[in-house]
Amino acid sequence: MAPRLRVTLGAFLALFLAGASLIFSAAGRSPAPEISVDEAARRVLALGLQEEKAYDLLRGLLEAAPKRLTGSEGAERAVDHMSGVMRGLGFVNVHREAVLVERWERGIETAVVEASAQRAARELAVCALGGSVGTPEAGLAAGVLEVRSFQELKALGNAARGKIVFFNQPMDRTILEPFRAYGANAEQRVRGAAEAAKSGAVAVLVRSLTFRRDRHPHTGLMRYEEGVPHIPAAAIATEDADVLSDFLRADHDLTIRLTLGCRDIGPVSSANLIGELRGSENPEEIILVGGHLDAWDLGTGAHDDGAGCVHAVEALRLIKAVGLVPRRTIRAVLFMDEEFGGTGGRFYANAPERKGEKHVFALESDRGGFLPLAVGLGGPEALDRFKAAGPLLQFLGVVRGIVLGGGGVDIAPLAERGVPLGGLIPDATRYFDHHHSALDVLEAVHPRELELGAVALAVTAYLIAQDGL
Amino acid sequence: MAPRLRVTLGAFLALFLAGASLIFSAAGRSPAPEISVDEAARRVLALGLQEEKAYDLLRGLLEAAPKRLTGSEGAERAVDHMSGVMRGLGFVNVHREAVLVERWERGIETAVVEASAQRAARELAVCALGGSVGTPEAGLAAGVLEVRSFQELKALGNAARGKIVFFNQPMDRTILEPFRAYGANAEQRVRGAAEAAKSGAVAVLVRSLTFRRDRHPHTGLMRYEEGVPHIPAAAIATEDADVLSDFLRADHDLTIRLTLGCRDIGPVSSANLIGELRGSENPEEIILVGGHLDAWDLGTGAHDDGAGCVHAVEALRLIKAVGLVPRRTIRAVLFMDEEFGGTGGRFYANAPERKGEKHVFALESDRGGFLPLAVGLGGPEALDRFKAAGPLLQFLGVVRGIVLGGGGVDIAPLAERGVPLGGLIPDATRYFDHHHSALDVLEAVHPRELELGAVALAVTAYLIAQDGL
Repeated sequence: MAPRLRVTLGAFLALFLAGASLIFSAAGRSPAPEISVDEAARRVLALGLQEEKAYDLLRGLLEAAPKRLTGSEGAERAVDHMSGVMRGLGFVNVHREAVLVERWERGIETAVVEASAQRAARELAVCALGGSVGTPEAGLAAGVLEVRSFQELKALGNAARGKIVFFNQPMDRTILEPFRAYGANAEQRVRGAAEAAKSGAVAVLVRSLTFRRDRHPHTGLMRYEEGVPHIPAAAIATEDADVLSDFLRADHDLTIRLTLGCRDIGPVSSANLIGELRGSENPEEIILVGGHLDAWDLGTGAHDDGAGCVHAVEALRLIKAVGLVPRRTIRAVLFMDEEFGGTGGRFYANAPERKGEKHVFALESDRGGFLPLAVGLGGPEALDRFKAAGPLLQFLGVVRGIVLGGGGVDIAPLAERGVPLGGLIPDATRYFDHHHSALDVLEAVHPRELELGAVALAVTAYLIAQDGL
Repeated sequence: MAPRLRVTLGAFLALFLAGASLIFSAAGRSPAPEISVDEAARRVLALGLQEEKAYDLLRGLLEAAPKRLTGSEGAERAVDHMSGVMRGLGFVNVHREAVLVERWERGIETAVVEASAQRAARELAVCALGGSVGTPEAGLAAGVLEVRSFQELKALGNAARGKIVFFNQPMDRTILEPFRAYGANAEQRVRGAAEAAKSGAVAVLVRSLTFRRDRHPHTGLMRYEEGVPHIPAAAIATEDADVLSDFLRADHDLTIRLTLGCRDIGPVSSANLIGELRGSENPEEIILVGGHLDAWDLGTGAHDDGAGCVHAVEALRLIKAVGLVPRRTIRAVLFMDEEFGGTGGRFYANAPERKGEKHVFALESDRGGFLPLAVGLGGPEALDRFKAAGPLLQFLGVVRGIVLGGGGVDIAPLAERGVPLGGLIPDATRYFDHHHSALDVLEAVHPRELELGAVALAVTAYLIAQDGL
């Protein structure tokens, strides 16, 4: 009986040790035996789809800091909150890096078509554009000149003098790619006030940049020109723009009283937030995955860019949770101030902390939390190097796999230093329905779509960290 | 002056005639000069995106006939309404074809976990499955046996006797393709009552088929087996299923009082609805584009399959509106009774009206009104013949272009007659959130996504009608 007992004990010990090693490995205490990127991807997908933690992360951020306008207290709360989240998830090197940003504040914002003999007064849904000066406290009242383009404005010569210029060019719905349609119209929002001021206007109303017809104005950045008067600038909801246009056809001489309480506060200090999974072989070589923490303040910035922030954090969480240890460092960067000038991206690229670091790739997610249609990799060289992983990404639900593209405002300054850029390209069909408006809220995000974006970024970052399939 | 006047009059007449001919041609009175499929596709896309008429058509259908359960008055109203729509749009050969369907009616439906010493009574969100018998008027009260599979049920032997069997297997979220996850679980809904009855159960509750956790039960067809007792069958919302499962862990002996007022009414006559654009060269050769008019009655069947119906109608409208005259006939068929047995599809395939007709292709849209990811063409031969149009469809926003696939319940009987099948494959990520529940309503449909599906079907049908690019 004795020999038999010894064998059983030996077998028991062997099993015990194997079990312990499995437990340690699952807890990340010792490096897991290396598995293929393919197998890694399967695990990341299964865990992501099962848990849908990206949505929980997003809910947490939006509850902790629903308003995150650059330089605001809300933005600081967002940094605090996500810092705690990263530490809680076991990321390393979690720290802030200073960014100096301009703080601007929204105030009261109303626009009323004043009563006339034929018509009662009518309130229009408007919001100040980011960076606009305010009106006098009692508002300003003026006639309205409706135009569709800068050319038309110029051709009208003196007609804009003393008027509110109303840029009413709808986004062209026949352009399939929504970002392209947006791009074609965005200059009316960005430069409209400067162009109108050159013509002697006292304020501008700009039709909101969305395909939809509703009563939600969409804000966004505007810029003044040096030497040109700074006049108040507001966005008007698409439905209200149509109403105003109808009113104007019936009554050229109507007046609007516009009241904007927005104002510049000046520069304040803020921060980018960083957290990592440290590379096992080349920790100084970095794959960056980023989004931006600041957001316009009408909604809660769920798609723009809460989604991008939780994409980055969930990507790292997934890699860690399935027991992968990347060869290079994978770093999440939550940038400050994408919306109000992109200072976060510039500060990051030029920070003293970059000394001794080598960024081998930077990936950004700043196109919302919708179904991932593709992962874009910038530059034919990067595309060539990783295109073999296209089918793998399609297996993960990235409909078109890998395409040429990607990038974004936050990581663009890294490109000047030779870092290849890429990023997530989700379906944009619904993006501008919500973008920069009160409709950009948690309810507009789908947990599974959001998670698939994080899965795609996790696998792309890991793939690059391991140098390919 | 006289000669000059004559010249002017002549020029005027020439202009008038040219104008009139333009007007006639725009009104479709004379065939437009033939344009390439490519150019046709561009026009269809631009008009579709600009007008988004599919959504208006859907709103009209859902307002006219919000409830369209097979054999109901609502279903008849839907046929009437869409018949008027097709005539109004100038479709030809608009007519009904008789279908004999089974009518079943929903009644009261409640399930209450009865009060015990430890716990107050608790109502659960349930709905009868389609085809279920009702309970006695006062309901039936019984203990509950929770299982995850038919195997588990069988292994438990007599344990189900006199009980309500509670099938509580969640849809597997780790399966990427939602239709596959649905398929893997659907047999608990379809065959659960029969399997439970064999084990002596008195009723079944089946966990709703959705990835989401909410309080909306999802109905759908169930079937009895001959010679096996017909016991009442209901779906339970996923959140309520989790609550019930928790309750059962604490109290094995709890009882549920289930009351279902549903009942069979027997066979009634109904109809498929047909309308066409007549082919200019081979009118007897038909490309069918179809969806189904009947719908489950908890929501308004916006995605399933109001979307498919308006996809078909809008596809024909777009082709006509941009002035195309197809060589072959393009026919919209709005089938009755997809949900309750598929009789509409079988009646259509076998109707006397099919004599002398040749169906060259049948396309179905019955996967919702979401972003089109692909057009599926069944059979390698059809795929080969039209795959050159893949990039064209991608240009129209169909993300993956043309793939092998497509088909559906309504057109399947045509395949037995050698007709190649195909169809629209939209993104399914959100589909089962709404499917067969109170959440399948107009608000769940996006106008642009819906329209892109119609554009894809219009161009695919026209492409086949013209025999290729």
